[in-house]
Amino acid sequence: MEEIDEMLETAQMFYDGKEDYKRLTGKIACNLFFEPSTRTQYSFQIAEEKLEMKVISFNKKSSSIKKNESFFDTVKTFDSFGIDLLIIRSLQNEYYKELAGKIKTKVINAGDGTSNHPTQSLLDILTIKQEFGFIKGLKILMVGDILHSRVAHSNLKIMKRLGAKVFISGPNEYLEKDAIFIPLEDGLLSCDVVIMLRVQFERHDKKFNMSFQEYNEKFGINSKNIGFMKKNSIIMHPGPVNRNVEISDNLVECEKSRILKQVKNGVFVRMAVIEYLLRNK
Amino acid sequence: MEEIDEMLETAQMFYDGKEDYKRLTGKIACNLFFEPSTRTQYSFQIAEEKLEMKVISFNKKSSSIKKNESFFDTVKTFDSFGIDLLIIRSLQNEYYKELAGKIKTKVINAGDGTSNHPTQSLLDILTIKQEFGFIKGLKILMVGDILHSRVAHSNLKIMKRLGAKVFISGPNEYLEKDAIFIPLEDGLLSCDVVIMLRVQFERHDKKFNMSFQEYNEKFGINSKNIGFMKKNSIIMHPGPVNRNVEISDNLVECEKSRILKQVKNGVFVRMAVIEYLLRNK
Amino acid sequence: MEEIDEMLETAQMFYDGKEDYKRLTGKIACNLFFEPSTRTQYSFQIAEEKLEMKVISFNKKSSSIKKNESFFDTVKTFDSFGIDLLIIRSLQNEYYKELAGKIKTKVINAGDGTSNHPTQSLLDILTIKQEFGFIKGLKILMVGDILHSRVAHSNLKIMKRLGAKVFISGPNEYLEKDAIFIPLEDGLLSCDVVIMLRVQFERHDKKFNMSFQEYNEKFGINSKNIGFMKKNSIIMHPGPVNRNVEISDNLVECEKSRILKQVKNGVFVRMAVIEYLLRNK
Repeated sequence: MEEIDEMLETAQMFYDGKEDYKRLTGKIACNLFFEPSTRTQYSFQIAEEKLEMKVISFNKKSSSIKKNESFFDTVKTFDSFGIDLLIIRSLQNEYYKELAGKIKTKVINAGDGTSNHPTQSLLDILTIKQEFGFIKGLKILMVGDILHSRVAHSNLKIMKRLGAKVFISGPNEYLEKDAIFIPLEDGLLSCDVVIMLRVQFERHDKKFNMSFQEYNEKFGINSKNIGFMKKNSIIMHPGPVNRNVEISDNLVECEKSRILKQVKNGVFVRMAVIEYLLRNK
Repeated sequence: MEEIDEMLETAQMFYDGKEDYKRLTGKIACNLFFEPSTRTQYSFQIAEEKLEMKVISFNKKSSSIKKNESFFDTVKTFDSFGIDLLIIRSLQNEYYKELAGKIKTKVINAGDGTSNHPTQSLLDILTIKQEFGFIKGLKILMVGDILHSRVAHSNLKIMKRLGAKVFISGPNEYLEKDAIFIPLEDGLLSCDVVIMLRVQFERHDKKFNMSFQEYNEKFGINSKNIGFMKKNSIIMHPGPVNRNVEISDNLVECEKSRILKQVKNGVFVRMAVIEYLLRNK
Repeated sequence: MEEIDEMLETAQMFYDGKEDYKRLTGKIACNLFFEPSTRTQYSFQIAEEKLEMKVISFNKKSSSIKKNESFFDTVKTFDSFGIDLLIIRSLQNEYYKELAGKIKTKVINAGDGTSNHPTQSLLDILTIKQEFGFIKGLKILMVGDILHSRVAHSNLKIMKRLGAKVFISGPNEYLEKDAIFIPLEDGLLSCDVVIMLRVQFERHDKKFNMSFQEYNEKFGINSKNIGFMKKNSIIMHPGPVNRNVEISDNLVECEKSRILKQVKNGVFVRMAVIEYLLRNK
């Protein structure tokens, strides 16, 4: 908890353009993304560059993965290079358990399968704090494909710990049993923060069984239901947005939307997490 | 016009190894290439590195484009990262119209579909000026696949504005109506600069209907017709050359060829364009 | 020979963390890998970064190779950019013969087809010297797919020149005629260094005709035959290891294994080679 506060404080300092921090000049970061990513991958790269690190970006398709080298052996190879930081995204849930005690390089989890996405949670929390000043007591609604969303799983854990009241809504088949369900309209009427989740078509093993329009009407933010939202409440989304599915096209950048602010905060949060991890204390 | 002159002057200064310019240390450039490229893509990267910028290279295939994120949303994401410069190549003609007024980051167009390729035109002009000292009044011939060539389209506009007399030649089906046609031999006899254009097989919607040899004999530079060229005239090509199509293999690096000099100039021109755009004035 | 000694000495200095060397600040290295690679590709990148060079990494799949540009023209393009160093891996044996006298940029061979892999040999030699203090007179065994292994071909040449006694073992069809064969057990009993070679499935033109288990039992290091190895002898492998083929899974990181130390040494050797090549003397 204290470390979360400290990282958020540092991130806010970066956001405010206060530059009185230690650079990590000369330290080497290697970014190992085993799944496609724009926001997380490039905001980590930019964060590393801003901290004056040396940045190596692993490209799975031109690597020995093509010669059937495993995830584990690839990570061990980078570990042996003598670098300072590994950023890893993997499609395997809790990939880090396989690495525990076996590598000496520090690792930041940039998303593991459908399980965790801690830096996304931090940037979500930073975005919320910038709006309300606090997290404790806020009502936060997450809507949609909870089941396949590592963002949702991370947020459920962390935001509850920080004292928020977290609700979920969405299609039955994508809900989690141990979270509090609320019908979408009720959620919009009562919640301070509405986090729309990307429908993760690429993780579904069966065909998506309704039209995009139907999804948008029932489980998305659209011109009909946005009016229900509380005054001062905000809309968030980890991106990429499926336009006209989770959110109607014309509302993606509406007044309530903090989606692009989340992207901006992503760079500062990742700078803060890296700095926290590599700084000598 | 004045800005073109200024950029060309700066580029020439870089070419001459005069280093009394402002570096762009710490500024962040992101290169978004949505089409394959060697010359343009890597000369931009090298230009950015030489200017001491931090360089981020977007890889479409490991990005959220794979999750169906659109061009527009990808650019908006980078815009939100808080960077200083976007270099964009897209297969979409005039993609920048979609972005106009919607992003705050400065953009350099690295080629849009078959429409424009302004930095290529600038490096062509620099190469010609290095040869003749001026553009006004020169006779410039462009040969081949004018229709699909953004280089041709950009050159037609800019070179005319600079006072050159621009002619085109090549197969009927690849010509543009609003440019002055000249038979290839007449063009070779009378023109100072002969710009051969790459046959853009990848942009043709029907099969190329003649043999490479036939194309080379009728519309290429070959050992038979190179002798027609004026004394002191030069051959250019934006690359990559289809050897033995636009130019016979043994003439690609002949005495009249400035093709590799164009590549060299590409780095300096792009440094100049970036510096012009980002410098505080 | 003298240059090998000098490079090894420099590499050892880097290994020991002695930093009294000239940096190559501002020099530009371009890495052209036309074949997948993790160890070689990324250790070169890290080496360049540690030497404070500017690093450009060519991605074949987003380059003009996609427009059918040839290897030769791609290299010539980079040569024309005005850079300081090219690192090239190609699937073509002795690709550098095609470039000889035609480019002005310095080139380091990062592996050519099945022919040579000089920096791998250097890191192998460094690893052996760190163990024994010398090469001359050591008995070195290479086991497995000699025929398709550029590592084996380079090592055979260099290690013999340095005075080692080099033996080979493995399946008949993968042996080289001009090297001294020894049955695996005899080799394990008598040799100081055992270099296991990756079975290069991707280079075989016919199907691999035995099970992995059979290969491991006959030609691999396994729990039955590791006991035959001499005291103080070591196991090496250029990687990536096919686990349970060349080496049983549980022995890859056994006490005798120097496989990850080789990876570590790779960075330092490549720094030394680059520095040797680019330093003014």
